[in-house]
Amino acid sequence: MPQLILDKQKCLSNIEKMANKAQKNQLSFRPHCKTHQSAEVGNWFRDFGVSKITVSSFPMATYFAHAGWKDIHIAFPFDPGQIPTLNALPERVHVSILIDNPDILPYLKKIERKVSFYIDVDTGYGRTGVKSEATPIVESIIKQSQNIKNLLFAGFYCHAGHSYKTTDPHIREDLHLKAISDLNLLKEEFSKYAPKALYGDTPNCSIQNNFKGIDEITPGNFVFYDLIQHALGACQMEEIAVAVACPIVGKYPEERRLVIHGGAVHFSKEIMLLDGKPVFGQMVSGIHKGWQAFDHLQYISSISQEHGILEECGDWMKKKKIGDTLHFLPVHSCLTANLMREYHSTEGQTITTLNS
Amino acid sequence: MPQLILDKQKCLSNIEKMANKAQKNQLSFRPHCKTHQSAEVGNWFRDFGVSKITVSSFPMATYFAHAGWKDIHIAFPFDPGQIPTLNALPERVHVSILIDNPDILPYLKKIERKVSFYIDVDTGYGRTGVKSEATPIVESIIKQSQNIKNLLFAGFYCHAGHSYKTTDPHIREDLHLKAISDLNLLKEEFSKYAPKALYGDTPNCSIQNNFKGIDEITPGNFVFYDLIQHALGACQMEEIAVAVACPIVGKYPEERRLVIHGGAVHFSKEIMLLDGKPVFGQMVSGIHKGWQAFDHLQYISSISQEHGILEECGDWMKKKKIGDTLHFLPVHSCLTANLMREYHSTEGQTITTLNS
Repeated sequence: MPQLILDKQKCLSNIEKMANKAQKNQLSFRPHCKTHQSAEVGNWFRDFGVSKITVSSFPMATYFAHAGWKDIHIAFPFDPGQIPTLNALPERVHVSILIDNPDILPYLKKIERKVSFYIDVDTGYGRTGVKSEATPIVESIIKQSQNIKNLLFAGFYCHAGHSYKTTDPHIREDLHLKAISDLNLLKEEFSKYAPKALYGDTPNCSIQNNFKGIDEITPGNFVFYDLIQHALGACQMEEIAVAVACPIVGKYPEERRLVIHGGAVHFSKEIMLLDGKPVFGQMVSGIHKGWQAFDHLQYISSISQEHGILEECGDWMKKKKIGDTLHFLPVHSCLTANLMREYHSTEGQTITTLNS
Repeated sequence: MPQLILDKQKCLSNIEKMANKAQKNQLSFRPHCKTHQSAEVGNWFRDFGVSKITVSSFPMATYFAHAGWKDIHIAFPFDPGQIPTLNALPERVHVSILIDNPDILPYLKKIERKVSFYIDVDTGYGRTGVKSEATPIVESIIKQSQNIKNLLFAGFYCHAGHSYKTTDPHIREDLHLKAISDLNLLKEEFSKYAPKALYGDTPNCSIQNNFKGIDEITPGNFVFYDLIQHALGACQMEEIAVAVACPIVGKYPEERRLVIHGGAVHFSKEIMLLDGKPVFGQMVSGIHKGWQAFDHLQYISSISQEHGILEECGDWMKKKKIGDTLHFLPVHSCLTANLMREYHSTEGQTITTLNS
């Protein structure tokens, strides 16, 4: 069966680098846990001084609250249906939620515990958030929130996800600087509330160096990275900390094709185009204490529910037999980890997750 | 939180239609369980005379064996690493596996129970299987298998997955007839072993009418169908038996955009192109005892880990508010069901799966 291998040393190194970068830029570090979804991996952050986290759902918030975290930001637009879950979170946990619409506020009269909220700001991504220039809406949300007991305005949050849409370093820097500038303008406009600015997707937090005015960064994917991040220039290939171990189940030398047990229910159907060709994973060689060498440029070129197909295999395939294990870096580690539900570390540990 | 809604009446009707088609064509019906992955849904087949099933992995075989099934075909190329699991399956279960390479046979000397095997035949799909014309390999596999105690050659299996690659009815019929003809030639060539022919993906089993020489059909997706099957002409929109219920979490009337809680960890990243635009799900309206009406042609046009985006929403969006639930047919129900891990039936039942 396919297994998700986690190179603990690479992972710790990724955490350390981001923690150092935060410290160097005088940023508080509030890593997002949606990629690893694991209490054990979460604990690894504590050695780097991390005491607060970001999550993307209420089940994830509940899981990490029970794992001992005391400051959790739920960076997903608040759904009124989650009020019972919000109320049920342990009292000792400082919880913050995300809001971009005053219509949500009447529901929040039902909260039975102290809750901070951040206003989601759209600096150009176009998914969720109040547009940076829409200060009347911001004002309206803050004003109305003051009538709700237990609800406290904490600041602004921006996920500048358009960082994933370009590999041009100049365009990306411009998008990043605009996002930061927008957040600073909002902080200034509403300075009497002393709002914080939370920011940070993995590409920007990995690549950019100007975080002026930002208080906390919230990247998540960097803990493992993946082929998308590599293609964006956010990491080195050697920094990718997870790989899927897949047995060979079909060998077709005449067609230079191998078939592995490793499909859409393991890798997800996240697709990447390399030279116009679809890629669902990239083979790595050498798994002893982590993968180092990348001898063969070999990709998973198509995928069905349980099968992965390697086409145009080189002579290396002659030495491989059915039942042998091959290792592949995932295109999108968040989705792969969510599907695989547990890790096997290169140090021999089985690591569970929220989904185990 | 998103929930996977299962319309039991649509599902039973899909099962009944396929069971009737099998009976009419004098075919034994061995449905594939990889789509629903649920003991409860599996039980619904028993009322239609089904006593044997197909699965795609050993964990699935183990799960359905413990759910009482006594005849299970594991329609995935056999991985030698699964021999301990194979040996551990309950003695009372008749197990068959899939092989396309004589290299696998030495490993099978370690089996400690009776196991039938089918030879996987590639009639043109190009994923796994012995090429139809490669009769010397077939002969070699059968001959060598006779030296292995407990191993019994049972026949030929073909998943003609290239039925998914065309919507042209003539091309698809040709591919289907070639597949059937190939299987019949193999049955004839190796008639002294009285081999059976197992066949059947959902598009061919739904659309085609000539199954001459086929003994058993093994379709799976038809139990729910989905948008891909609809696009292929394999089902009516009204036959799709699962929908994802998603709360609205963002409303942006100026941009005519809604954001739902329903992302890649719910729908999967399976993509469909409609008029050149990406689609990750199609909205349906009316959920009372199943969805009937399709008032608004509205799709999920992009998706991230937890978010789904509806663009170019019509005036209907004005009546919707944050927290309201919308329902969406999935592009690929197998992957959606695998991610969602449980069903909520329109009759009020919570239905668990292998992954619950």
